Amino acid sequence: MTDKMGTVARAVASPNTEIIACNPPSAPVSLECHYDEAIAIPHLLAEMGDSDIDGYIIGCFGDPGLMAAREITTAPVLGIAEAAMHVASFLATGFSIVTTLSRTKIIAEHLVINYGMERHCRNIRAIDLPVLELEIKDSPAQNLIRQECQKALQEDGCGAIVLGCAGMADLAQKLSTELGVPVIDGVSAAVKLLEGIVALGLKTSKQGNFAFPPKK
Amino acid sequence: MTDKMGTVARAVASPNTEIIACNPPSAPVSLECHYDEAIAIPHLLAEMGDSDIDGYIIGCFGDPGLMAAREITTAPVLGIAEAAMHVASFLATGFSIVTTLSRTKIIAEHLVINYGMERHCRNIRAIDLPVLELEIKDSPAQNLIRQECQKALQEDGCGAIVLGCAGMADLAQKLSTELGVPVIDGVSAAVKLLEGIVALGLKTSKQGNFAFPPKK
Amino acid sequence: MTDKMGTVARAVASPNTEIIACNPPSAPVSLECHYDEAIAIPHLLAEMGDSDIDGYIIGCFGDPGLMAAREITTAPVLGIAEAAMHVASFLATGFSIVTTLSRTKIIAEHLVINYGMERHCRNIRAIDLPVLELEIKDSPAQNLIRQECQKALQEDGCGAIVLGCAGMADLAQKLSTELGVPVIDGVSAAVKLLEGIVALGLKTSKQGNFAFPPKK
Amino acid sequence: MTDKMGTVARAVASPNTEIIACNPPSAPVSLECHYDEAIAIPHLLAEMGDSDIDGYIIGCFGDPGLMAAREITTAPVLGIAEAAMHVASFLATGFSIVTTLSRTKIIAEHLVINYGMERHCRNIRAIDLPVLELEIKDSPAQNLIRQECQKALQEDGCGAIVLGCAGMADLAQKLSTELGVPVIDGVSAAVKLLEGIVALGLKTSKQGNFAFPPKK
Amino acid sequence: MTDKMGTVARAVASPNTEIIACNPPSAPVSLECHYDEAIAIPHLLAEMGDSDIDGYIIGCFGDPGLMAAREITTAPVLGIAEAAMHVASFLATGFSIVTTLSRTKIIAEHLVINYGMERHCRNIRAIDLPVLELEIKDSPAQNLIRQECQKALQEDGCGAIVLGCAGMADLAQKLSTELGVPVIDGVSAAVKLLEGIVALGLKTSKQGNFAFPPKK
Amino acid sequence: MTDKMGTVARAVASPNTEIIACNPPSAPVSLECHYDEAIAIPHLLAEMGDSDIDGYIIGCFGDPGLMAAREITTAPVLGIAEAAMHVASFLATGFSIVTTLSRTKIIAEHLVINYGMERHCRNIRAIDLPVLELEIKDSPAQNLIRQECQKALQEDGCGAIVLGCAGMADLAQKLSTELGVPVIDGVSAAVKLLEGIVALGLKTSKQGNFAFPPKK
Repeated sequence: MTDKMGTVARAVASPNTEIIACNPPSAPVSLECHYDEAIAIPHLLAEMGDSDIDGYIIGCFGDPGLMAAREITTAPVLGIAEAAMHVASFLATGFSIVTTLSRTKIIAEHLVINYGMERHCRNIRAIDLPVLELEIKDSPAQNLIRQECQKALQEDGCGAIVLGCAGMADLAQKLSTELGVPVIDGVSAAVKLLEGIVALGLKTSKQGNFAFPPKK
Repeated sequence: MTDKMGTVARAVASPNTEIIACNPPSAPVSLECHYDEAIAIPHLLAEMGDSDIDGYIIGCFGDPGLMAAREITTAPVLGIAEAAMHVASFLATGFSIVTTLSRTKIIAEHLVINYGMERHCRNIRAIDLPVLELEIKDSPAQNLIRQECQKALQEDGCGAIVLGCAGMADLAQKLSTELGVPVIDGVSAAVKLLEGIVALGLKTSKQGNFAFPPKK
Repeated sequence: MTDKMGTVARAVASPNTEIIACNPPSAPVSLECHYDEAIAIPHLLAEMGDSDIDGYIIGCFGDPGLMAAREITTAPVLGIAEAAMHVASFLATGFSIVTTLSRTKIIAEHLVINYGMERHCRNIRAIDLPVLELEIKDSPAQNLIRQECQKALQEDGCGAIVLGCAGMADLAQKLSTELGVPVIDGVSAAVKLLEGIVALGLKTSKQGNFAFPPKK
Repeated sequence: MTDKMGTVARAVASPNTEIIACNPPSAPVSLECHYDEAIAIPHLLAEMGDSDIDGYIIGCFGDPGLMAAREITTAPVLGIAEAAMHVASFLATGFSIVTTLSRTKIIAEHLVINYGMERHCRNIRAIDLPVLELEIKDSPAQNLIRQECQKALQEDGCGAIVLGCAGMADLAQKLSTELGVPVIDGVSAAVKLLEGIVALGLKTSKQGNFAFPPKK
Repeated sequence: MTDKMGTVARAVASPNTEIIACNPPSAPVSLECHYDEAIAIPHLLAEMGDSDIDGYIIGCFGDPGLMAAREITTAPVLGIAEAAMHVASFLATGFSIVTTLSRTKIIAEHLVINYGMERHCRNIRAIDLPVLELEIKDSPAQNLIRQECQKALQEDGCGAIVLGCAGMADLAQKLSTELGVPVIDGVSAAVKLLEGIVALGLKTSKQGNFAFPPKK
Repeated sequence: MTDKMGTVARAVASPNTEIIACNPPSAPVSLECHYDEAIAIPHLLAEMGDSDIDGYIIGCFGDPGLMAAREITTAPVLGIAEAAMHVASFLATGFSIVTTLSRTKIIAEHLVINYGMERHCRNIRAIDLPVLELEIKDSPAQNLIRQECQKALQEDGCGAIVLGCAGMADLAQKLSTELGVPVIDGVSAAVKLLEGIVALGLKTSKQGNFAFPPKK
């Protein structure tokens, strides 16, 4: 899945942007609940030490560790859920999220509130397959995702779809074409937003809440 | 002011982005209340006919006509208030807006609500000078803006500043350096967000609310 | 439709109230999206010059130009959506709105938020016929409206109906009788609210946000 | 105070409106907390039996018993806080409430939420004199109210004042003139709104929540 | 029903807690609307005079008179709806309420808002039987409650059930076992919360809003 | 600090409650930002394996890892911020939080939103001393806390204080007596709430969001 995200990211990145896709080797293989996220976050934060990095993207739709990550760097940091929802809000008055397991809906719900997307997010839907199913050839996952997107468009009063899992990153363009509405993948959205922020010379604010952690 | 915005936009635009800065000749010279916006909007919309345009930016901090503009084109459309607030929310847990006249605060307040920024926007402040003061050489405007930004940082618990008028676009970088926090100008923010969205091939959703206006 | 509104307004007006129903000749014939509203608003505002007028009603359920209208006069100004929703909130703990095209629901949604009616408005429903259908003899519109009202009463947990289009003004009383619940038309509601406000000698506040537009 | 309210009501009522101002003899002499309201409500409801009444106004700014009152009659019922806040929201983008004791602010706060006025109500201020002080000749109350209104206009960003006690009903017009902004008394506001609703033939919905209480 | 509540309360109370279950003799036999509550509240408050009482529980799911009760005592006072909802929020990310008559749903809705439970409460459901049906042997009520709980678990995305009537207090444990999720009765929840608060020596704040009622 | 919490907890615990106060040895010595929390959470979760435990309390005012903790056990789990805020909401219509560093206010803000306490929490105040200052004999911390509590009572319109750090647990009773209002420490509040929930036989719901983490 990390490779897939790297490929998607590189496909949309500007020519002079170098994408480094990495996965902490000892973190859980997929993040499907608060516990998985909690265990993964310190590993994720440990990957962030390199001062040559211009910006970071957290490649999991739960945006795990986003606030902590912003504390330990001056580089801008984006979550892929955050990026996808904000872009969706520019293109339609409402979007629905299509994710994997129902139990992750509560994580997306909290993000919707944190990002002020309560009125833009019309529904959060799950196909109820685990994340790693998305990596299996000939899995029914892709069909279930398409069907859930179609239902969303018919029932939720939405004009765009947000794909609620990094593992769906490679489907966005195909689904956009098939469904005739913007289908937004957070990985590619985050790449372009981050490139923009870096180009503007903007950095994570170190005044106040995102100041470097106090020394112990 | 249109020239200034064009210059700012071009300064941050990618090499292969062409910026066309235009101002409807018969619209009000500055937009400082709902009435000014109402009168300007049809002129603004009338500028939008060209099918060669990849995306539009509405260059006034009230984001006038944004919803209507999205109805009449498939190209993505961004408002500069929208762009600035969203970018600010990526860099700090809270931002304050510094604008011109107090009476425009209500317009910004409504945008804050529309964009779900109630919890991110800590305060809206005004220097109480009219918009066109910003164009006058040796005006006290620049000093007042700096002072208001400083007060915001001391009193509002914010970590970033959003400049609440297109006429302040040229001050962002200088103030960022002086104040040591992200100071965000909506014009440049919108240019980079829009470039990103265009690069992703995303368009305004024509399903539902932003469908082309019904024929009469 | 302007005539119909005039008739409805006069039917409920007090004997010493003179109703002037007017329609800017060059505005769109019906307002069914943000674009239609944007184009109509300057025409609407241009009708408002006469200092002998005691109060204004904006006769379209989107309340287009309401804020701008309040800036250019000291007379009180009411929108018909605003009037209808407020009156409905006095008579039932929840109401549903029945409107014409689905695409106008987003406009009503924004008004619901602006007027603080999120908890009172239980649903917004559309019959999916264009506004001008309401003017056609033997149109199925009236039946569709009645059916949608009945569904609202059965499914939405509401105790009152707000008719979501000025073109439905003449149906309120008949539907009220048939359905046994308050069915509220904004035109007549606005007439009575406005008469009351005028009788109290209250005017649009000129302190702050609704002050006359700055001179250019 | 009941006489004062009757006088104010009659002064604004239409010629063919008969105002009956009554006060349950065994209720508390003033309502200044939840307990006072709780004790008064059954007395208030007991006054409401007469089927000849076209509509009811609850003449206390806490709108005590409003929901219960709407259950036991088909006539429309208005609270004076409700009436004042809704009218204020038509005339300014924000209002402040000036009331008597600080401890009653929590009651007003809850009403603000119930009526969806969170964004319209900018502040709730108290002069910290008991209600009955308003009835004493040469009391400092009137001066304190004026001062508090002036502070509200200077500090709260509001364009209108809502008087937060029925005992202030006679001050509205005078203060309006002195302060140059709408100062709204709930008694007179409720009279005009109620006359309008009655004229429209609208009644409290008996479908659902306001149905007559179940027989025991 | 009072006896039942006393039995349930004693079954969960600590050995050294004395439960006094009392019912004002002249209050309505069941509280099923705002009017019933309004009439019952003064009777309820009149029961509260004894200074030997360590804490009070209001044994009706509408928490009638809770604010007034807190004004007339320094002892802590809990409502059973309040207790049940707060406990539910500790055990699941969402709960549904199952109550008796549909018309009482509006009362529960207001409590949900007052207690900040909008995001925790997923749905409010009614079996549409009157309260006193719960006291009848062989009534279908128990089956209807179980069915509604099951529907809630299937359709509402909730992980816990709150029983929305004091008359259901004896069903909580049985339903918990049958359904495999926490089913929370407010009477027993309130007993344990109140014992805890009393043990901590905490009392109702007499600073500000809950100060004793002003003397008349 | 762990010892202090253990002492406070044991002082309020019922005689047959055994308190085990533990601190993961390799976690940060104090949690003062998102990063500290993120690093501590896996250590905290690793402490939770023992199936003999009846319930867990997370002894840090940020309630770190609360959602994850609820996933890995059937025992009830409480955070001390959660416990303190809920108890405060039973005793006063509003409370203020007094915490250590200003930068932790954003963490408390998010908890306030998560727990639905936006209307109950009047202010969050910081004394701007690091957490470990609370452990130093003769530190000015205690005086600063008292002063901040007094300011809260004078300026915030609150009737109770929530102590915003586990290190303040031993001050609650003393401050309550001095200030004459409920001053609530989350450690002792959580002990009593948890004892109550355990006594009721209630457990964390395993239906849905808090189900055990998926096996990898």
